[in-house]
Amino acid sequence: MKKVLVTYYSRTGNTAEMARMIADGLVDKGLEVILKRVEEVNMDSITEFDGFVVGSPNYFGTMAWPVKKFVDESVKFFKKLDGKAAAAFTSEGMIGGGGDLVVLDILKAFLIHGCVVQGLTSAGHFGPVAVGKPDERIGKEVAVLVEKFAALVERL
Amino acid sequence: MKKVLVTYYSRTGNTAEMARMIADGLVDKGLEVILKRVEEVNMDSITEFDGFVVGSPNYFGTMAWPVKKFVDESVKFFKKLDGKAAAAFTSEGMIGGGGDLVVLDILKAFLIHGCVVQGLTSAGHFGPVAVGKPDERIGKEVAVLVEKFAALVERL
Amino acid sequence: MKKVLVTYYSRTGNTAEMARMIADGLVDKGLEVILKRVEEVNMDSITEFDGFVVGSPNYFGTMAWPVKKFVDESVKFFKKLDGKAAAAFTSEGMIGGGGDLVVLDILKAFLIHGCVVQGLTSAGHFGPVAVGKPDERIGKEVAVLVEKFAALVERL
Amino acid sequence: MKKVLVTYYSRTGNTAEMARMIADGLVDKGLEVILKRVEEVNMDSITEFDGFVVGSPNYFGTMAWPVKKFVDESVKFFKKLDGKAAAAFTSEGMIGGGGDLVVLDILKAFLIHGCVVQGLTSAGHFGPVAVGKPDERIGKEVAVLVEKFAALVERL
Repeated sequence: MKKVLVTYYSRTGNTAEMARMIADGLVDKGLEVILKRVEEVNMDSITEFDGFVVGSPNYFGTMAWPVKKFVDESVKFFKKLDGKAAAAFTSEGMIGGGGDLVVLDILKAFLIHGCVVQGLTSAGHFGPVAVGKPDERIGKEVAVLVEKFAALVERL
Repeated sequence: MKKVLVTYYSRTGNTAEMARMIADGLVDKGLEVILKRVEEVNMDSITEFDGFVVGSPNYFGTMAWPVKKFVDESVKFFKKLDGKAAAAFTSEGMIGGGGDLVVLDILKAFLIHGCVVQGLTSAGHFGPVAVGKPDERIGKEVAVLVEKFAALVERL
Repeated sequence: MKKVLVTYYSRTGNTAEMARMIADGLVDKGLEVILKRVEEVNMDSITEFDGFVVGSPNYFGTMAWPVKKFVDESVKFFKKLDGKAAAAFTSEGMIGGGGDLVVLDILKAFLIHGCVVQGLTSAGHFGPVAVGKPDERIGKEVAVLVEKFAALVERL
Repeated sequence: MKKVLVTYYSRTGNTAEMARMIADGLVDKGLEVILKRVEEVNMDSITEFDGFVVGSPNYFGTMAWPVKKFVDESVKFFKKLDGKAAAAFTSEGMIGGGGDLVVLDILKAFLIHGCVVQGLTSAGHFGPVAVGKPDERIGKEVAVLVEKFAALVERL
């Protein structure tokens, strides 16, 4: 059984809600899923996972610093995550706030780890971008991400 | 009197409408404004301008090719636009489509020209991003851009 | 036999040379490779490919307009490239010229097409970035890209 | 007398050395300069400055987390830095490591603050990118940044 880490930082609860939706969806697809706040991830466990789904609120057009701290500390396992799958999502306060930049910055970090990422043709192109509390649009986007990501993890 | 070029590519008319709104606003601020489609700009005239406002629909997360052609051909005046003001705007079909990336890619090109850009604290952070036909939200964002850009052109 | 398109724009010949190195490497890995300038690609053939490797010189921090034109016209096959592999490379005149941005902008476009991309841990993180004429460093980077990309195409 | 904050994070000392070079240059241009590690900046003092020059090593293609923490905490003064000048620089281990992305991510954050930034036509386009220990090339790039930034601060 493939094993996936869904991890996130959240202050208002919006990014946390997206993380739960994604984790629930991936469990339904038959994956083993660990859902944790970034502050609580045991870094020494990360090489056990076949894939990573990482979420952050949009703070100044990129990931919040606790997510960046998690990413920076993962350097301990540089070259050990090569070929694993990665995906990202974000939540922001307004349209035009740069949410796509946050998603891309997270993906960029996992590409540097040698991970594999896939774009989405029928949702936020790089990953779901919630504006405020996750709504019906986000429900659909999460469903697309879950389906594509579960398939990618299985194929790799 | 400071002179500004507002130029854009548009197929559906949405980006063209934003361009007209911006040009009208800048005229109201007392600037001399030339409004032209990118295909019709006389490249040899670009050093006459004190500022540039450039718009493109979001095509694959960056500017449409006719806008890129305009940018590429402006290399003829590399180092001659140094210190002039620049701003950007975009129009896209859906939230999460990456509109901020388009705006940033246009700004990136003008930064390479040595231009000066300013972010916006009460609108799309890097420039207006319309979702479909420009609506009331875009009217407000354009007003913010116009005010900030006109002031920047005057100060430089 | 998996089939890959290696396509590029080149004016000075540096990007063309990288394209040939990549195409040769992929042939050695047992793939069927079509190598063409972007201006000469028959767009109606692109759904036949299992993967795309796209190169551009760095013009103003993103791809040259003929490459963007190729990308824009590929919208005709939007949703038809879903799940295929993509990679990118660039050539620029100087260190700090923004070559990584060019590679990422090309990858961004193929992510919007639903393609799958992989980062590199022992080369330019997103794809090879030549500074001037491709040198020994680029030879090594191309070898890394070829190995990872051929394996990715086979796995998908 | 205009007052500028030069702040940075550094572990190996390379980014710190760039910060000192920039601070020295700005003092020579007649500006009052405060040079501090990001961890030591008194956030309540930041509205006193007319400009910010921020440096970070390249960690996973964006700023190191202590720099992001500094940026995130500056939200306390959102809209209070509007119209001030900003610039950025980075240090990385290898060519093609994505240093331009780090510089742009820092600039993006200050654009969101409403700051004004200028590109450079005769240096790393968005700001100096050192590869390893700052060398003669970086000395020249720092000189270009210092001259442009000092002039921008005076004009705004």
